[in-house]
Amino acid sequence: MPHRLFKQRLAETAANVEALMDTVLDESTARSSRVMKAMRYAALNGGKRLRPFLVVECARLSGADPVGALRVAAALECIHCYSLVHDDLPAMDDDDLRRGHATTHIEFDEATAILAGDGLLSMAFEILSGDEIHPDPAVRIQLVRDLAAASGVNGMVGGQMLDLEAEETPQGTNEVIAMQRLKTGKLIEFACQAGATLGGADEAVCAALRDYSANIGLAFQVADDLLDVESTAQETGKQTGKDAGSGKATFVSLMGVEGARRHAQTLVDSAVVATDIFAEQGETLRQAARFIIDRKH
Amino acid sequence: MPHRLFKQRLAETAANVEALMDTVLDESTARSSRVMKAMRYAALNGGKRLRPFLVVECARLSGADPVGALRVAAALECIHCYSLVHDDLPAMDDDDLRRGHATTHIEFDEATAILAGDGLLSMAFEILSGDEIHPDPAVRIQLVRDLAAASGVNGMVGGQMLDLEAEETPQGTNEVIAMQRLKTGKLIEFACQAGATLGGADEAVCAALRDYSANIGLAFQVADDLLDVESTAQETGKQTGKDAGSGKATFVSLMGVEGARRHAQTLVDSAVVATDIFAEQGETLRQAARFIIDRKH
Repeated sequence: MPHRLFKQRLAETAANVEALMDTVLDESTARSSRVMKAMRYAALNGGKRLRPFLVVECARLSGADPVGALRVAAALECIHCYSLVHDDLPAMDDDDLRRGHATTHIEFDEATAILAGDGLLSMAFEILSGDEIHPDPAVRIQLVRDLAAASGVNGMVGGQMLDLEAEETPQGTNEVIAMQRLKTGKLIEFACQAGATLGGADEAVCAALRDYSANIGLAFQVADDLLDVESTAQETGKQTGKDAGSGKATFVSLMGVEGARRHAQTLVDSAVVATDIFAEQGETLRQAARFIIDRKH
Repeated sequence: MPHRLFKQRLAETAANVEALMDTVLDESTARSSRVMKAMRYAALNGGKRLRPFLVVECARLSGADPVGALRVAAALECIHCYSLVHDDLPAMDDDDLRRGHATTHIEFDEATAILAGDGLLSMAFEILSGDEIHPDPAVRIQLVRDLAAASGVNGMVGGQMLDLEAEETPQGTNEVIAMQRLKTGKLIEFACQAGATLGGADEAVCAALRDYSANIGLAFQVADDLLDVESTAQETGKQTGKDAGSGKATFVSLMGVEGARRHAQTLVDSAVVATDIFAEQGETLRQAARFIIDRKH
């Protein structure tokens, strides 16, 4: 079991964040139960909860209160889940299947899915503004600023736009890296940075986590591209082979399967080196980095 | 000129907020210029800027710094504009025309419009987190909390969902009021509340502004329903007669034109009474309330 400690912590965090989101996304108080139902459908149907794990783990390494960290993790997961709902829409990636279930617009309808995504996006900031996050409002507002920046036009949303535009213009490796750094990288970087912010980590720790998260963020995407060509829908719980079908440049189309695999390994090695600062306490992050390229979904 | 002072202040605020948003929505630094172009298209094409006016005016009445108030106004307008972009989508209200121009998904495409809306929503919270809003982070986080709540599932998004559901279920006056209090009311209430929060207004002022904003919020919607049956697309800059066509309950279908007009007048009268606390300083808010039912678009 090469990732035993990581998998244990990942499962713990997943269960904790799921329970917290189940409470926060409270159907009984929602004015329109239909949109809340759709928000719950989109947010509570499992998922690895890798981003929440990173928040909680980096908070632990920075000496932060785990209660606040879990709430930040839930806020971040609201952002991640909203982006999946909107990305799956017919006008975007047009996906019917996600984590082995019908996507939100299939289960409900497009209008409800758009609103559920919008609702989750607002909910993230509602959660972050709460006193339980951290006693110092300056820390809370820093988290709001960082999450808004990571999610928006100069972060995830900008990356998603570049990804859609890439279907029309031939892309080289640098363009794909730049796009992925925004599309998936920024939220992963926020996850680690948020843990450090909560714990008031010093600059050396912050720099190490920036380095770590930038490397695993990219490795995560290279691994995703590999999974897209090597796995079946049954294994991944979503449509596979889509990228090759669309003629869109991916790390695999640009580097070949072997080249992409080597590149992912190099990124993971760099991520592992970045965790040296935590000595044996960093073992979970190291296992997480290795898991990213070993996973089957 | 029954609304001279109000119209002057409204025009001033509109120009100021437009200039600020032009700076904040900075194409030169945006990673994906296409989505930023669409955000600018959606946010900088005019509009009355009633919500920004309310923030700035209530901030002035509460003794707040006008610089921070204008930034809160810009954040709120980002939320309002994102909601229009998403509401106009084919899966939602399917509108081609807004303020006399093609809607964002017509000018660009649906995917870009979805992302532009998402980008504006994140941008609102990025603006609110900035130091320029207010020196005290506790005030900034309060504004984040209130705006997130006003925008989300228990606010505007919930109202929009109820509005879509209303097409399938017959609605009475109470249901329409409850829906509109969320859909348009919550942001208008936030506008006034934010001004009071920025100025640290006492509870009497806060209560007066809550009363005022709840009344004008509803009056605004009754007036909109009246405009929908009485105006042409040329006058309003958007499609008219849509509500009657959809068979959806409106204040006009429930109360008749004369009944709706009387109801709007009653709401405006209540709003005007609520501003007594400001004596002559409240004249602009009184004119604003009266303007809401006199406007032609």
